[in-house]
Amino acid sequence: MDSVDGLRDRLRDFAAARDWEQYHTPKNLAMALSGEAGELVAELQWVDDAGAVAGLAEGGLKDRLADEAADVLLYLIRLTDVCGIDLVEAANAKIDRNETRFPPTT
Amino acid sequence: MDSVDGLRDRLRDFAAARDWEQYHTPKNLAMALSGEAGELVAELQWVDDAGAVAGLAEGGLKDRLADEAADVLLYLIRLTDVCGIDLVEAANAKIDRNETRFPPTT
Amino acid sequence: MDSVDGLRDRLRDFAAARDWEQYHTPKNLAMALSGEAGELVAELQWVDDAGAVAGLAEGGLKDRLADEAADVLLYLIRLTDVCGIDLVEAANAKIDRNETRFPPTT
Amino acid sequence: MDSVDGLRDRLRDFAAARDWEQYHTPKNLAMALSGEAGELVAELQWVDDAGAVAGLAEGGLKDRLADEAADVLLYLIRLTDVCGIDLVEAANAKIDRNETRFPPTT
Repeated sequence: MDSVDGLRDRLRDFAAARDWEQYHTPKNLAMALSGEAGELVAELQWVDDAGAVAGLAEGGLKDRLADEAADVLLYLIRLTDVCGIDLVEAANAKIDRNETRFPPTT
Repeated sequence: MDSVDGLRDRLRDFAAARDWEQYHTPKNLAMALSGEAGELVAELQWVDDAGAVAGLAEGGLKDRLADEAADVLLYLIRLTDVCGIDLVEAANAKIDRNETRFPPTT
Repeated sequence: MDSVDGLRDRLRDFAAARDWEQYHTPKNLAMALSGEAGELVAELQWVDDAGAVAGLAEGGLKDRLADEAADVLLYLIRLTDVCGIDLVEAANAKIDRNETRFPPTT
Repeated sequence: MDSVDGLRDRLRDFAAARDWEQYHTPKNLAMALSGEAGELVAELQWVDDAGAVAGLAEGGLKDRLADEAADVLLYLIRLTDVCGIDLVEAANAKIDRNETRFPPTT
């Protein structure tokens, strides 16, 4: 099964088993996504580019970023699912449009 | 090919063809992700839950949310790619942990 | 009159004159604040530190940042006002605590 | 002294006494602001409007929001200070423009 479809199904089951569907409104999920995006950006706020590379090589930063990136992805998949949006199709359509908007330079 | 792997490869090619890899540092991509998450949340800021349902049914809101969700996903995939993070593995690991943290109630 | 009190009063009058108080719930205003913070961070996403300095000196970036910073401040003042929070008192209390948490090094 | 000027001066002294001015670049401060805005929105993500009112009356939510709002304000003041932006002037100018863009309805 495709990874996004698989995660979508796991999140549906997770919410249903906890009776959390009532909280998963578009507004609430968008706020949760925004909060997690804030946590992700906060992991990188005080490092410079060299510090980010070093932190990623050392491992601690990489694990923390992976954890925050996972949270963002999960809320994004759940939000688009409750809104009836095909996330992967939308992402591919966006790259299609960007390829026209920004012609290759090389 | 898995959808996330496919998008990751398209984004790699897109950046390489425009010589944009130099701009795709972890900090810059995290900021871009944060900006797109802000645009997504802004689409829902003034509607109430009933208004969100109506806006999604009517279509305009759904298209705008799909577009912003696509932007968030693309920067998230690109950020984790340049950081050497397996995004789908991290997301599945997060659901595994949440299943332990929040036992089902039903 | 203190500047924050003055802005708070202008925002109260602005909302009342347009019958917008009904939309100014804590959730909606927090979402609006988050959206504006996203616009602010987006202004700086592709520049490096030297580019930010150059952009500020040239003027265009400074004007755009001022505009986005204003939006963030206005929603922050309005949000705390509807929540009955004294924003300036909270900010001074936070610096007080930080002075204890992070003793001066020089 | 005006409250914003007072907070700006306290933040200048705070950064200087800890040799933190080197970290207070526009990019880093914008990221820190974005992270704090994410924490603020997260405080309201699962409550509905009635729940927000109840949480504010009970006190715990009000204290947490005050704390997060303070963080947002402090980074906003510090960011605009290092960028040479007059934050209060920008905010008043923004209300001036909005009064023209959105004529009163009552």
